[in-house]
Amino acid sequence: MLTAISGKISASVTAISWQDGALKLLDQRRLPQHEEYLLLRNVAEVAIAITSMAVRGAPAIGIAAAYGVVLAARARYLQDPHGWKQVIEEDLALLAASRPTAVNLSWALARMRRCMDALHHDPESALLTEALNMHNEDIEANTRMGALGAAAITPCQAVLTHCNTGALATGGYGTALGVIRSAFSAGKISRVYANETRPWLQGTRLTVWELAQERIPVTLIADSAAAYLMRQGKVQWVIVGADRIAANGDVANKIGTYAAALAAHHHGVKFMVVAPSSTIDMSVADGAQIPIETRSADELLSLGGSAVGAQDTDVWNPSFDITPAGLIDMLVTEHGILAKPDAVKLQTLARQMSALP
Amino acid sequence: MLTAISGKISASVTAISWQDGALKLLDQRRLPQHEEYLLLRNVAEVAIAITSMAVRGAPAIGIAAAYGVVLAARARYLQDPHGWKQVIEEDLALLAASRPTAVNLSWALARMRRCMDALHHDPESALLTEALNMHNEDIEANTRMGALGAAAITPCQAVLTHCNTGALATGGYGTALGVIRSAFSAGKISRVYANETRPWLQGTRLTVWELAQERIPVTLIADSAAAYLMRQGKVQWVIVGADRIAANGDVANKIGTYAAALAAHHHGVKFMVVAPSSTIDMSVADGAQIPIETRSADELLSLGGSAVGAQDTDVWNPSFDITPAGLIDMLVTEHGILAKPDAVKLQTLARQMSALP
Repeated sequence: MLTAISGKISASVTAISWQDGALKLLDQRRLPQHEEYLLLRNVAEVAIAITSMAVRGAPAIGIAAAYGVVLAARARYLQDPHGWKQVIEEDLALLAASRPTAVNLSWALARMRRCMDALHHDPESALLTEALNMHNEDIEANTRMGALGAAAITPCQAVLTHCNTGALATGGYGTALGVIRSAFSAGKISRVYANETRPWLQGTRLTVWELAQERIPVTLIADSAAAYLMRQGKVQWVIVGADRIAANGDVANKIGTYAAALAAHHHGVKFMVVAPSSTIDMSVADGAQIPIETRSADELLSLGGSAVGAQDTDVWNPSFDITPAGLIDMLVTEHGILAKPDAVKLQTLARQMSALP
Repeated sequence: MLTAISGKISASVTAISWQDGALKLLDQRRLPQHEEYLLLRNVAEVAIAITSMAVRGAPAIGIAAAYGVVLAARARYLQDPHGWKQVIEEDLALLAASRPTAVNLSWALARMRRCMDALHHDPESALLTEALNMHNEDIEANTRMGALGAAAITPCQAVLTHCNTGALATGGYGTALGVIRSAFSAGKISRVYANETRPWLQGTRLTVWELAQERIPVTLIADSAAAYLMRQGKVQWVIVGADRIAANGDVANKIGTYAAALAAHHHGVKFMVVAPSSTIDMSVADGAQIPIETRSADELLSLGGSAVGAQDTDVWNPSFDITPAGLIDMLVTEHGILAKPDAVKLQTLARQMSALP
């Protein structure tokens, strides 16, 4: 039994943990009405949990996939202690395909594969240690980004955030919401406006819930009200996460991020992106090359299980959009802050990272 | 019985009509799943129908209120054939307060009052004639605006619209949707993208329904996807209605209009506002002076009758926003088109209108 190790993980909300030899996930589809946990014992269940958004948020998806590799390796090794490294490739492909836009997923799988390549015995213990390390490093990165981002923002009335980037979307603490937590603790902000974030309502269901638990004042708005909010001077910063960052600094993030960035630019509101360096994908030159997941029409046509629109309606439902680097005032990673990120600054950061131990 | 007169009204969807001495409304809260009609026999019911959005859309609200005055006058005259003009003021005040942003409502009430002032006998017949005239004139204005707007737009791939501005929102035919109908008939556009229009989902429920009935190809998107749609060059025009237009050309319209206008401006997409001249309010200098209705938190916290967010969540839910005149390429009224509307052009239009018989 390896559950004791999970005691190392500490986070304000424990949405992901390893328990009794299984991956335990807080089912985010049921929040905030129901706090229900899933106990996943095989890799197929993990892939389904990612695709169906029981777990979501780029860093959280990466961590869940890493634990998925542990489950896959245990089963494959039991089936075939000699050939398991070949057959597990099917499982890695399944996980890689579970959501296409976030790069943290393929980053986590690559890291688990590197660990796996060095193994010649029962892989479970070593792979679990790697997954737990990855999980802990994510929380540490979030804490570091929270401090960096909070130090960088000027004291202000309120900030706007989009989607959910908190403990639920990461290993714990959060990226953009980590900065917001830190800045609130430091007395630099007094209120958060949360976009409801259609169609999945991560704002209404998850961000409001997390901020309420931290007693950070939050006001929910329709996504389309954000521009009007900015026009009235009510927010000074927009702070968001990222699902993938291209080599030129373009950012793929939850649909609506680009609209918020455009409105911020127009009103002189500062725009901050907070993401661990695992979100940076130097292999894609710019945002146009990032694959954008399109999700089902049903996300717009049904609400709370009942139909609101005709079921044969043609729907365009991209789950993400691209915010060009030129609209971003600050990119915060665990390695520091890039003001006005661009290809040269990203290249320098990538060189520094590859020089790290 | 005055029902025969209602036969004069013709529209693609008959959402408002006078039938058997009562106001018959298609209940827009139940669409598209249910086509149910309300038969309103007194003014209190009309006020409730407006406030609760059984009828919505600035021109439709004005027409419903005019019929409401007929119902009020019948009842008040029956109670007191001598003093009814005094006591009916209560009813006019009730109707005026039923929704604050659209000016067509107070415009319609002022017109009904002028008609009433000249009466010295049983008022029902004369007031009903006035309401029916107003209703018919609205349909005529829509048809005229449809032709003008369609003639003005360049043939293009697709247009984006926000909220519902069709037969359901007007006396019939529609304002922005009237232009879209005309332009589609003329072969100038081949597809409409419809914003779902949170929180009330007029796009999903009403616009998609109306366009489907007309067999105009329509694709539904989340409001926050509109900017990303424009970035991909998929639409060349944004066409919307208006609830009130200030003397300087600033436009109050459904929340999200301003965000769409900003995105259009950024991408070189043309922005057209289509509204009857009764929407222009020369008594307010600019958009900042237009009262903006704030609706209940429940519109964001519940969907299809079931809760999605915590019921004690703080919500900012403005039902409208202000699009500055500078972002508007074309304002279409039944009197013609104003390119780049401003205070001088609006003043000229107002002078022409007051010189009309």
